[in-house]
Amino acid sequence: MHRDDGWRQVADWMGTLADLDGAAAVLEWDRETIMPPGAGEARGAQLATLAGLRHRHLLDPSVSEAIDVVAQSDDPWQAASARIAMRERARAERVPESLVTALAEQSSRSVATWGEARPTSDVAAWLAELAPLVDLTREQAAALADGGDPYDALIDLYEPGTTYAMLDPVLSDLAERVRPLVDSLAGAGGPALPAGPWDDASQMALASDIARDIGFDGRRGLVGRTAHPVTMGLGPGDTRLSTRVDIAEPLSCIMAVLHEGGHALYDQGIPEHRRRTLAGDAPSLGAHESQSRFWENHVGRSPAFWERLAPSLAAAFPEAAAGLVPDDYVRALNRVERRPIRVESDEVTYDLHIVVRTRLERAIITGEMEPADLPDAFDAGLTELLGVTPATPAQGAMQDIHWAAGIFGYFPTYTLGNLYAAQLADAAEARVGPIDEVLTEEGPGPLLAFLRDAVHAHGRVMETPELMRQATGSDLSADPFIAHLERTYSPASSLP
Amino acid sequence: MHRDDGWRQVADWMGTLADLDGAAAVLEWDRETIMPPGAGEARGAQLATLAGLRHRHLLDPSVSEAIDVVAQSDDPWQAASARIAMRERARAERVPESLVTALAEQSSRSVATWGEARPTSDVAAWLAELAPLVDLTREQAAALADGGDPYDALIDLYEPGTTYAMLDPVLSDLAERVRPLVDSLAGAGGPALPAGPWDDASQMALASDIARDIGFDGRRGLVGRTAHPVTMGLGPGDTRLSTRVDIAEPLSCIMAVLHEGGHALYDQGIPEHRRRTLAGDAPSLGAHESQSRFWENHVGRSPAFWERLAPSLAAAFPEAAAGLVPDDYVRALNRVERRPIRVESDEVTYDLHIVVRTRLERAIITGEMEPADLPDAFDAGLTELLGVTPATPAQGAMQDIHWAAGIFGYFPTYTLGNLYAAQLADAAEARVGPIDEVLTEEGPGPLLAFLRDAVHAHGRVMETPELMRQATGSDLSADPFIAHLERTYSPASSLP
Repeated sequence: MHRDDGWRQVADWMGTLADLDGAAAVLEWDRETIMPPGAGEARGAQLATLAGLRHRHLLDPSVSEAIDVVAQSDDPWQAASARIAMRERARAERVPESLVTALAEQSSRSVATWGEARPTSDVAAWLAELAPLVDLTREQAAALADGGDPYDALIDLYEPGTTYAMLDPVLSDLAERVRPLVDSLAGAGGPALPAGPWDDASQMALASDIARDIGFDGRRGLVGRTAHPVTMGLGPGDTRLSTRVDIAEPLSCIMAVLHEGGHALYDQGIPEHRRRTLAGDAPSLGAHESQSRFWENHVGRSPAFWERLAPSLAAAFPEAAAGLVPDDYVRALNRVERRPIRVESDEVTYDLHIVVRTRLERAIITGEMEPADLPDAFDAGLTELLGVTPATPAQGAMQDIHWAAGIFGYFPTYTLGNLYAAQLADAAEARVGPIDEVLTEEGPGPLLAFLRDAVHAHGRVMETPELMRQATGSDLSADPFIAHLERTYSPASSLP
Repeated sequence: MHRDDGWRQVADWMGTLADLDGAAAVLEWDRETIMPPGAGEARGAQLATLAGLRHRHLLDPSVSEAIDVVAQSDDPWQAASARIAMRERARAERVPESLVTALAEQSSRSVATWGEARPTSDVAAWLAELAPLVDLTREQAAALADGGDPYDALIDLYEPGTTYAMLDPVLSDLAERVRPLVDSLAGAGGPALPAGPWDDASQMALASDIARDIGFDGRRGLVGRTAHPVTMGLGPGDTRLSTRVDIAEPLSCIMAVLHEGGHALYDQGIPEHRRRTLAGDAPSLGAHESQSRFWENHVGRSPAFWERLAPSLAAAFPEAAAGLVPDDYVRALNRVERRPIRVESDEVTYDLHIVVRTRLERAIITGEMEPADLPDAFDAGLTELLGVTPATPAQGAMQDIHWAAGIFGYFPTYTLGNLYAAQLADAAEARVGPIDEVLTEEGPGPLLAFLRDAVHAHGRVMETPELMRQATGSDLSADPFIAHLERTYSPASSLP
């Protein structure tokens, strides 16, 4: 087969995959935003049908030879697409369909039970569905690992190219260096903002303005609203992010827009003509999270950003924002506290939550620990690393949906995002100057231009470790992140 | 094969068809409501991929035997599903894929050209793309007709069970009896409402209230907003209708809600557990239009309806509606005028537009007429039947999108809807009492209950002529419609 013919066949095949993924994303976006309550079952059936057709199409044997040919291509985008195709096909072949179905069904049951059991910390009910789900997940991990490390096989679903052996020393180093920071910084930052009300429609209007300000293209996407903020790529030219609104305070809306805006800018930065190929995407969740955290933490928590934004808040909320100065926002955003809940934590303590979870879920998957041990082990881990003990299992091992949904190997991608974001911030400063100065003098444009060039433009041609090495000049490291925290909370700032 | 096994296999196969149709409807609803402008091409590709997968699934040979078995079922729903499956599969097999593709491509070109050519009445440009599209449509009609009448084969796509031989005498009778009515009623009705402004958000809120008032279930659907009002079934439990808003007058919004509401009530009235089968739908467009016209014309143009609704308008639009009495709305809605544009016409003149188009398009498909003859023939037909001559081709043969899109055989379903609506209104009155009295004393509930029982509950078990015969006790006839017009514009009303 000639290489051009091979590529044409593979491109057609991938185009159909992209169309099915895009169609499913439209169905999901609709479900999260406006779907009427009575449509849940039908939507589930539609998504299951699309997933089944995708699975069959993914494994289409008629394209095997063409993929083999394209894998030898000199074009890095074509070769990467073929490599990703081979990996996805191998995964799909390794996990029997009966196991896929059993996992989906047990995950649904387990999530539903978790949702009911969490408010009352009903550990027994939660574990009764979690234990069989863990068994199935171990089976899945063993099938995917094909003799290798089972936890690595799960990480590989979300963070290809990264192993626990690469992660573990960095997480340990990070934890050891963050712990003394927490000791010295607990209580730093300022009080919460006044309780408003902060007008609902004005928050949504401001959200769109902020998204546009950092570079989001509203002709190729939109800003919506959901209970849980999310970013979805619905296809080329259709990137959607959502935020939430709490009329008692505007920061959750603004930080959600910056976080999801970072994901959305990444999605919009993938070269459009690559979008219908498997290489036309981000290489991993950690890479994606590096973008959301860059805008959320390195831009959105900075004094210079709030110098820019405070006048917009004063105009949008003439009463609620009356008398507030930029530093009030910065201090409210950067308050450091030992909280048991991950999603409520600040930038300093956040990753300690991840370290605890990563160690526990690895032990679960390798069989060193059983689900029944999770509640106590979780409390012990958080107490040791963060110095706070959850008052109830609801505030402890039961707090997150991930394990209840059978998602193991995902948690570390949050910290990878934080570390890569800090590495990228250093690289950006080396290229375009100090972020504060850039924001003050030129706005966010040069920062986005750096990320476009260093990260977005490369799609999924490289795995994340190599992409980040080329973008930042160094391997995964906690150094830039620790230095960033030390700068943020330096004695010269208003925070300590 | 045992019948139960056959049904299980057919039901699975139809469930996948329903899921693909529902998914495509979600993509279309999203496109019409919020899709960003840059996503058009990607959305087109996604819909084309779903259509291709649907086509392949429709023709799946492995289900042939099971369909044959189910066709012999004593269960009318199962037998009807098998019959519809056979018809759809036969159609899909008769039209070669190359012709399907050629039609889709030429239709896109032709619609685009029509959109550009219409404003300036550029007949030559319009015809240059229409002529090859007509050639392809004739080819399609011949393939579908399989030796039979080609125009009937196209009607059959939209109105199965109805032929031109059944239609022609009724349309002729209708035209002959409406013409003198137009002569005597031209100028009847009252002036337009004051120009407001009629608040935008209040119109949308009122639209939702009206939909709920006539029985629309907001838990299993929603009311949205589009440039062109539409109703879509996105799957069981998800029926969506849209309206439009013109702040210069509220009637286009209200009548659109009643029209689309009629479609939506039909969709919601199909028994839920039949929805994932081919019989779980309306049997034809004419049957569907009978429901929209019932609510729009027999309820929405009646004095009793406006006695109910006028207080809501007074509350929603305290300034714009100040001083208006119910009869002002009724008279504005029922003004009779000889207008060249179909979509702007009143209830009396509307069907004359359809008669002209039906005769012309039949002549085009049978080859008695060529597209180049359309402009003059259209003007001559409208002048003869309605007594008005379009000033330009844009107001004449070029006014509608249908022919430019290759849609022939669709126009008569509008008039079928009007005639069946009048037959159903008579049947409803015989069952539950005069519509005016029912609306005044009990509201719309008994009318919906009649339609649910007489029409909705039967899905697609019968073809439309039989369904309407059972529901109304008579064959297709213009009599009830003519009598309805005569009652509406009786000397006792405020209209003549």
